[in-house]
Amino acid sequence: MKLILDGLDLADAVATVSRATSARTINPILEGIKLTAKGGELTLSATDLEVYTKKTIRADIKQDGEVIVPGRLFADYVKKLEKSQITITSDGATVVINHGDNVCNFQCLMIEEYPDIVTLKAKPHFSIKSEALKDLIAKTTFSASADDARPVLKGVLCEIEGEKITAVALDGFRLSRVTKTIANHKEDLKVIIPARSLDEVRKLLADDNGEINIVIENKFFQINIGNTTFASRLIDGEYINYKQIIPASFMADVVTECAGFEEAVSRAGLLVRSDRINLVTLKVADKTILITSTNEIGKINERVPASLTGKDMTISFNAKYLFDVLRNTSTDFIKLSFSGELSPCVITSAKEGDFLFLVLPIRMN
Amino acid sequence: MKLILDGLDLADAVATVSRATSARTINPILEGIKLTAKGGELTLSATDLEVYTKKTIRADIKQDGEVIVPGRLFADYVKKLEKSQITITSDGATVVINHGDNVCNFQCLMIEEYPDIVTLKAKPHFSIKSEALKDLIAKTTFSASADDARPVLKGVLCEIEGEKITAVALDGFRLSRVTKTIANHKEDLKVIIPARSLDEVRKLLADDNGEINIVIENKFFQINIGNTTFASRLIDGEYINYKQIIPASFMADVVTECAGFEEAVSRAGLLVRSDRINLVTLKVADKTILITSTNEIGKINERVPASLTGKDMTISFNAKYLFDVLRNTSTDFIKLSFSGELSPCVITSAKEGDFLFLVLPIRMN
Repeated sequence: MKLILDGLDLADAVATVSRATSARTINPILEGIKLTAKGGELTLSATDLEVYTKKTIRADIKQDGEVIVPGRLFADYVKKLEKSQITITSDGATVVINHGDNVCNFQCLMIEEYPDIVTLKAKPHFSIKSEALKDLIAKTTFSASADDARPVLKGVLCEIEGEKITAVALDGFRLSRVTKTIANHKEDLKVIIPARSLDEVRKLLADDNGEINIVIENKFFQINIGNTTFASRLIDGEYINYKQIIPASFMADVVTECAGFEEAVSRAGLLVRSDRINLVTLKVADKTILITSTNEIGKINERVPASLTGKDMTISFNAKYLFDVLRNTSTDFIKLSFSGELSPCVITSAKEGDFLFLVLPIRMN
Repeated sequence: MKLILDGLDLADAVATVSRATSARTINPILEGIKLTAKGGELTLSATDLEVYTKKTIRADIKQDGEVIVPGRLFADYVKKLEKSQITITSDGATVVINHGDNVCNFQCLMIEEYPDIVTLKAKPHFSIKSEALKDLIAKTTFSASADDARPVLKGVLCEIEGEKITAVALDGFRLSRVTKTIANHKEDLKVIIPARSLDEVRKLLADDNGEINIVIENKFFQINIGNTTFASRLIDGEYINYKQIIPASFMADVVTECAGFEEAVSRAGLLVRSDRINLVTLKVADKTILITSTNEIGKINERVPASLTGKDMTISFNAKYLFDVLRNTSTDFIKLSFSGELSPCVITSAKEGDFLFLVLPIRMN
C-alpha cells in the first residue's frame, strides 16, 4: 500500500471513525482502524462489533492495499499532522507515515483477525430531516436504561407507521415519546436501536437540515452522511407495551414557562443532589408552582407562575428526572398533567407538540 | 444582617473566593465562606489556612453582620441567580436568600470556629507589571515538586535584589529560573512562595498589564487586585543552593525554532506516554536535531532544522519534562546547551532572554 494525502483530511476522518474503536475490550484487534486504499480513495473503518463507522477520503493512491493500524496511537499521531502532506506506505506488517523529513513506524495488527465491516446495500427504508432526527435522539436517549439486565430498555423503540416515526425510550422511572414526519417510507416496521448508537449518529449529523436516508436490513440499521457510513446492530427482543403506561385522563393540568421552571428545579435540586433519591416536591396550585427541597443543611423554596386547570396537588419527584426532561423540551410553555400523587406526571408542550414525557413520582412517607 | 445586592456581582465574587475554600479537609469550617456586611459593602472571604482570599462588592446594607455560609452550596446556588436582585438576611444561625418570590435557607456554620482572615497592613515590598508576574508564574510553577517530603521544593524561591526579582523552582529532575524587572523596591529579600498559591494568583491577574503591589510581612505575602485581596503563607526553610546546579560551560550549543521542536517532541512523546520514563532521544548535529522514540509498537523519528556550535551529541530525556519547558518558553528560537550525555541540558532563548530551564537527561543503558 502506498498513498499521499492531506493531513487535515486524514485527521478529520480518523477523528470520526476512531469513536467506534473499542478501548476496553477483551479483543485487542477492535482497538484497530482499518485502512483500505483503492481506486483513488482511502477508506478508514472501525468497529466495536455493535457500531461500524467508515469514512472515505480522497487520496493519491500509488499502490492499493489494506492494513489494520493501532487505533489510538494512529489517531493521536495524525491529529498532530493537520498542516502536512502525508505519505503512508505499508507492507502489511508495519505502516510507515512520512511527513516532511519525519517518519513514524507502527506495527500493524493482524488483518486476518479483523471483523468484516458491515455495509448494508438495501435501498433506504425511509428518510428524515436532519434536524428532526437530532431532536428525536435528544428527546429519547436520556430516558433509555443503562441496565444490562434488560437489553431492550437500553434501546429506543422506533415505530414506523405511514409517514410517521414514533420513538420511545423508558427505564422504569421515566419515559420519552417523540413523533416525527418521515418521507419515502417503504413499509411499516418496528425496530429497537441502541441508545448509544443514536447518540453517535447525533454527533455525525451536520447543521444543514439535509434529508437523511435510513437503511434497515438484517438486524442492522445504517445511515450515510456525506462520505461517512454509520451502521449499528439492532436490539433483538420484544419491547414493553408502553402505551398502557401513559395515563389517558388527568385530574389536573398546569401550564408554565419551561425555562423558568427548569431553572427553579435546577436550583432546588442543588440541595439534594448528593442524596440517593434527589427529592424535590411540587405544590401545584393556580397561579404558582412551589418547588421545595429540604435537607439537614437547609431548605429551598422556588416559585414559578403557572395556570392550573383542575385540582391542587402536592407531588414529589427525583429532581434529576425532571431536569433531564425540562432541558430537552425545546419549547416555550409546557403542560404538566397529573392524575394523583402516586401516578405518573405527563409533560407535553402547552401548544401542539410532537413529544410526551412521563416521570414517575416518589411516594412520600 | 440584611442586604440587597446584584446577582451578577455576588456570583462573580463567590466564584473568586470559593477557590480558597477547602473541599477535602478534616476541618469542615474551612468549607465555609464568610460574609461580612458593613458600611455599604459586602466582603466575602475564604481560606484553607494556606491561602486567604477576600473580595469586597457594593451592596445596599440594611443591617451590618457577619456569618459563615456553607461554601459549595452557597456558591452553586448564587451562580444560578446572575439575573436577579438578591436579598440576604441572617440571624447568625441561618442565612436566607430571597430573589423574586423565591427563598432559600441554609444553616450557617459556627462563626466562633472560623479562623481569622489574614490581611497584611504593611506597605508594598515591591511592584511588578501584571504581564511580567504572569510570565514568571507560568515559567516556574510547573518545575516545582509535588512531593510533601521536601516542603521547600513545593514552593518557588523569589530573590528580590535591587530592581530585579529572580524566581526559581526545581524538583530534582528539572529547574526553572526567570528574572523580571520590579519597581518601588524596598529592600533585598528571599522568600519561598507555594507554587499552588502562585497558580491561584495567575488566575486573578487581569489582562490590563497594570502594576501589581506585593506585600510581604510576617511570613505571608499578599496582593491586592481591584477589590480582591489574596494572601498566602510563605514556606519556611532554607532553599537549595540552585546556582551550583547550573553548568557554567558547555560542549555544544544548538539553536532551533521552538514551535517546530515542541511539535516534534509532542509527536515523539505519544509513543512512550504510558511508559514510566517516557523516553525520547535527541541526536544533535549541525543542520538537524533528530528526535526518536521507540517501543514494541513502533518507532517515531522527527527531524527539526537546527544550527550547532560544538560537538555532536546523543542524549535522552523524559519527553514530558522537555515538553513542559517548550510550551512555556514564549520565544521564537531557543538554544539548547549541552555539557555531555549525562549532564543537564540548559534551555534559554536564542536571543537575549530572561529565563533559563534545565532538564536532567536519562542515562541510557
